[in-house]
Amino acid sequence: MMKKLFATLLLLINAGIVLCQTEDEFFIKKISDEIFTNSQAYNNLRVLTKNIGPRLAGSANMYKAENWSYDLLIETGSENTFKQACMVPRWVRGGKDEATAILPDKTRRILDIIALGNSVGTEGKYLNAPVMLINSFEELDARKDEVKGKIVFYNYKFDPRFVETFLSYGDAVKYRGGQGTITAAKYGAVATIVRSMTHEAGNNPHTGATRYDSAYKKNPAVAIGLQDADWLADAILKNKNVMVQLKTNAHFLPDVQGHNIIGELKGATFPNEYIVVGAHLDSWDNCEGAHDDGAGVTQTIEILRTFKALGYKPQRTIRFVLFANEENGTRGARKYAEEVEAKNEKHIFALESDAGGFTPRGFHFDVTPAVFDKLKQWAPLFEPYGGNMFVNNGVSGVDISFLKKMGVSLSGLAPDSQRYFDIHHSRADVFESVNKRELELGAINMAALIYLADKYGL
Amino acid sequence: MMKKLFATLLLLINAGIVLCQTEDEFFIKKISDEIFTNSQAYNNLRVLTKNIGPRLAGSANMYKAENWSYDLLIETGSENTFKQACMVPRWVRGGKDEATAILPDKTRRILDIIALGNSVGTEGKYLNAPVMLINSFEELDARKDEVKGKIVFYNYKFDPRFVETFLSYGDAVKYRGGQGTITAAKYGAVATIVRSMTHEAGNNPHTGATRYDSAYKKNPAVAIGLQDADWLADAILKNKNVMVQLKTNAHFLPDVQGHNIIGELKGATFPNEYIVVGAHLDSWDNCEGAHDDGAGVTQTIEILRTFKALGYKPQRTIRFVLFANEENGTRGARKYAEEVEAKNEKHIFALESDAGGFTPRGFHFDVTPAVFDKLKQWAPLFEPYGGNMFVNNGVSGVDISFLKKMGVSLSGLAPDSQRYFDIHHSRADVFESVNKRELELGAINMAALIYLADKYGL
Repeated sequence: MMKKLFATLLLLINAGIVLCQTEDEFFIKKISDEIFTNSQAYNNLRVLTKNIGPRLAGSANMYKAENWSYDLLIETGSENTFKQACMVPRWVRGGKDEATAILPDKTRRILDIIALGNSVGTEGKYLNAPVMLINSFEELDARKDEVKGKIVFYNYKFDPRFVETFLSYGDAVKYRGGQGTITAAKYGAVATIVRSMTHEAGNNPHTGATRYDSAYKKNPAVAIGLQDADWLADAILKNKNVMVQLKTNAHFLPDVQGHNIIGELKGATFPNEYIVVGAHLDSWDNCEGAHDDGAGVTQTIEILRTFKALGYKPQRTIRFVLFANEENGTRGARKYAEEVEAKNEKHIFALESDAGGFTPRGFHFDVTPAVFDKLKQWAPLFEPYGGNMFVNNGVSGVDISFLKKMGVSLSGLAPDSQRYFDIHHSRADVFESVNKRELELGAINMAALIYLADKYGL
Repeated sequence: MMKKLFATLLLLINAGIVLCQTEDEFFIKKISDEIFTNSQAYNNLRVLTKNIGPRLAGSANMYKAENWSYDLLIETGSENTFKQACMVPRWVRGGKDEATAILPDKTRRILDIIALGNSVGTEGKYLNAPVMLINSFEELDARKDEVKGKIVFYNYKFDPRFVETFLSYGDAVKYRGGQGTITAAKYGAVATIVRSMTHEAGNNPHTGATRYDSAYKKNPAVAIGLQDADWLADAILKNKNVMVQLKTNAHFLPDVQGHNIIGELKGATFPNEYIVVGAHLDSWDNCEGAHDDGAGVTQTIEILRTFKALGYKPQRTIRFVLFANEENGTRGARKYAEEVEAKNEKHIFALESDAGGFTPRGFHFDVTPAVFDKLKQWAPLFEPYGGNMFVNNGVSGVDISFLKKMGVSLSGLAPDSQRYFDIHHSRADVFESVNKRELELGAINMAALIYLADKYGL
């Protein structure tokens, strides 16, 4: 009897007529089953990270990644695939970054450092200077008369009290970014060392872009891991006169031509209305860029694969956009937005995945209150898939944010952030740190949101 | 101006009088800040997993873990600490489990197997028998006449389509548990091999308890990893006559005395009303038991530490219970429940953490609808900490479930489950697979729930 009932139930499920399920619940479950059963995202991520690897803008690997993803979009069923050319910066590390701390008694300790992206180097020479421990900009301002000729070491700590670790990052990253580098130069420093923006207790240095102000000297800027930072801070407190000897060969070569890699599914009803789903194809040079942003790249392609596998015919044209040069220039993002504006392409929604391949919690939005009212009604559909935390906090993704001025509704996948800054921009951002199902669950939630945005508009 | 405003705001925050925050929001934020800033959970987990290690009931390490946690509870501020004695089974593996598959052409392949917990062994001899590929109980029933003298190989696959992986486990575990072992024995099999209950693509075999029925022969029962399972299934389909040679020394020694390790904070208002928070101290013998259940153990102790650090004086008596022998006997849990009943101790709530140390999603409950109505009102307080998914699905924890007959409201921490069965009961369940902040965030959510249950009752 039970068996018969079960068989009937199965029939009903297969026929898609289980009464308690809406059409949307049913289709999202189909997306979920398809991705959990047949996803290629994890295998694609393995190829991108292991066979290609680091792919900073302008590098030979950038071209490899462009060609691989272009071919993959076509193979996956993209109906219109193109490379959108843009000039990208070509910053190169130029070899291993080196630093040694020297105590007054001549004791030496090699520091594990990494030059910040876009930093100038020491041109192959050793820069020797006393290092000054600075815990905050307030302290730097108060002690500005001591800065001249010194290396400023920003030891501002990643605050563990934020639950959402992107808030810790937002709190600390100013010491790595322009404010840290520029303020130290303004006061006469010769270089900056910054404590890595991370919770992890190891010693991996974490890079990331810095910038300069043409009014002040461009100084070499490097990051160090937490163990070295704690040691160096302690050494300075104990010995006062600590020297650091620094060498980096970081420099810019002339810009080269890179590309956004773009695929499309043509809209059946409104072919001239566009929905973008995307991620950035570049990564830092010191890691495989698995979470940042190989995850987003492979999720984007997985959504295309899933729509094709399910025979989904979108109402609007869906663009799968892999942006060039997010990490140190956003030239791809700017180019894409320029073209949208120049061609007056009507974009109704853009979704980016660039916060890691971890288990999804929901979506951040940068939309009007009216649009958010509509979006919020969809949130319960995401509850079974863990992505139902919908927050209209003005956050989306760096690449798609250039579409904001055209009034496009924006969103970013919000994965769980607890592990993200353990690996972010460091050598720990490797394939092995990505979990297959978490990656897939992100793609499921993203595909569901694209499906709803396409079906109902925004 | 902005700075002044900020300073005033800080003052308000420090004074605890920010108007938009309720007392409960404020206290939970204090719990969160305390744990994220000063938690000992991760360091304690390192000691438990690395200095003690596997701690199956009856083993020498069981006693080490008992003594360590007893001392730690006292050191952490437990006001009344005791060992509650109970007899526990002493199942031992007795050396390395071995299996080799032999094809008709005499080709051999060593299989990476592990005897199931409580399984009998082959008494040091090699058992040689043809192996039969079985994909479901339906197939076994249909082919029951072929079973005699054979090894039944259950190759039922972990279903990837469940979002919540405990559902995949519930779906598959019957092949490892009594039904698999007993049904094969009933039809005349001489041993069983079961495909591991996991999503992970590696070859780690995953153990777990099985059981017997005295009406049928007790056969050796082992698990194999997914690569070996796929190979073996393929080999049987291609060659039909595949032999497996099996050796395990698994056996029981006489029961020994183990202990539940219990600490207390005395209730100021209702000292005779008890709230339990707990986890199980034992682990399987093939792993460090980091997620299962070192995470729960160290979270439990962390809640005690946090309440002491914050000077929290509970209304009710809070019991911190580390249960003995969850994995292969639940003798500790039974003993605890017996004592509660015998002493007529009024327990109003029990919370267990035994689903991994991953980022928390919420809580499962096994409570009356009326109690759940009350609990649901607290859920928004957990939103900032990610633990606001409250589901009254009759699930809590294996150990505390023995309190159900006394009408105790029960709950289990529900961490994200995507990674859990990659490591569960396998050699991959090691300290390195636990993330410090995820572990802490679990403790934060648990501490908040205990605080609310204590303050408002249930």
